[in-house]
Amino acid sequence: MYVSNMSIKTQPSDETGHDATRQHLLEAAGEVFAEVGFRAATVREICQRAGANIAAVNYHFGDKETLYAAVLTGSCQVSMQKYPADMGLAPNATAEQRLHAFVRSFLWRIFSHGPEARHGKLMAREMIEPTAALDSLIKENIRPMSMILMGIVRELLGAKADERTVRLCGTSVVSQVLFYHHCRPVLSRLYPDEKYDAPQIEGLADHITRFSLAAIKQTAKAKSAEAKK
Amino acid sequence: MYVSNMSIKTQPSDETGHDATRQHLLEAAGEVFAEVGFRAATVREICQRAGANIAAVNYHFGDKETLYAAVLTGSCQVSMQKYPADMGLAPNATAEQRLHAFVRSFLWRIFSHGPEARHGKLMAREMIEPTAALDSLIKENIRPMSMILMGIVRELLGAKADERTVRLCGTSVVSQVLFYHHCRPVLSRLYPDEKYDAPQIEGLADHITRFSLAAIKQTAKAKSAEAKK
Repeated sequence: MYVSNMSIKTQPSDETGHDATRQHLLEAAGEVFAEVGFRAATVREICQRAGANIAAVNYHFGDKETLYAAVLTGSCQVSMQKYPADMGLAPNATAEQRLHAFVRSFLWRIFSHGPEARHGKLMAREMIEPTAALDSLIKENIRPMSMILMGIVRELLGAKADERTVRLCGTSVVSQVLFYHHCRPVLSRLYPDEKYDAPQIEGLADHITRFSLAAIKQTAKAKSAEAKK
Repeated sequence: MYVSNMSIKTQPSDETGHDATRQHLLEAAGEVFAEVGFRAATVREICQRAGANIAAVNYHFGDKETLYAAVLTGSCQVSMQKYPADMGLAPNATAEQRLHAFVRSFLWRIFSHGPEARHGKLMAREMIEPTAALDSLIKENIRPMSMILMGIVRELLGAKADERTVRLCGTSVVSQVLFYHHCRPVLSRLYPDEKYDAPQIEGLADHITRFSLAAIKQTAKAKSAEAKK
């Protein structure tokens, strides 16, 4: 998945070894960065886990910063590919359906147990001690996702809504999803019986969509009444 | 504020020195734990910053775990005392007013710049790597706060609402507030012009209250209609 398609394959066997080492480094780095964070992670530990020479990070990525950025962007893309924001909706889906799909896909990404689950841990660390890699992640992934959501919310609010209202409502939607990621240790202690299996994730998606749609429609009504005054 | 009231003051001058050292340790520990987290923090570093003997943590708190728990509970209490959940409302305030006060006080705690702001950083670290101290914090602070919110939401939803709906709606409220804490690094990059000064914090509180009230009232209507079927 992380294997680069940029190199020209003139020497198949060397190329395979080259790509395999790169792939092992990315996987080992993902583990180590998720466990101890960017700053505490050492190139030595990553190379050891990858079964690679200590110079391998330097050779394949240049430095720890670039390796980390590749891990962060890669884990985000894997997660996005597995649960795309439209969840396979038809192109003519309504704004309500698109909001539901957006919320569902985001929740599924958050509750994922696959290797893409690592992305959540990396992001939680970024929220405490942001690195330079966050800027490019926002540019390439977070801002485009935010634009999708704001587009849906804008359509639901109607032509009378100002951009500030769109932003506040969009933020209210996304916050309800992210809570289940950020506050998991509190939730699991407050409500130890909750399992967060497939039916429950779908139930959460239904609740968040319904709650948000009711609030957005009421906001639209209020804005429309204000405009008529 | 952290000074213990448990000791009997027979020797005023020694007592003052005793309490001062304890207080310096708590302050230094708060800084160090917030900066590097519970696991990476060392007793040596904390004692050095507090200008105390290396044995002082052991003498005053027993071990690093107990010192950490005292810091976490203390920072939470300071924050709660400064911005109580009812924000000084009259006892006969309506559920709508109490929801607004709950949201406002929580947002003010989150955007606080005082020493109580440290609590947010400690909590963010707890959400990545929970320690034993989280259990007592939940018991003593988070669960009681959650009960206040759920009581307000239950009153707003009316007698027809089941506990699951109360919990889902309460979670939707609190998540909208906590988002501004957990996702600050993303927000500050997506919207660099936002200042989060007093008028903006009040504006956020108004939006979150309005958004939540509209959704809760619509949920109450739907539940009431269901019950009539």
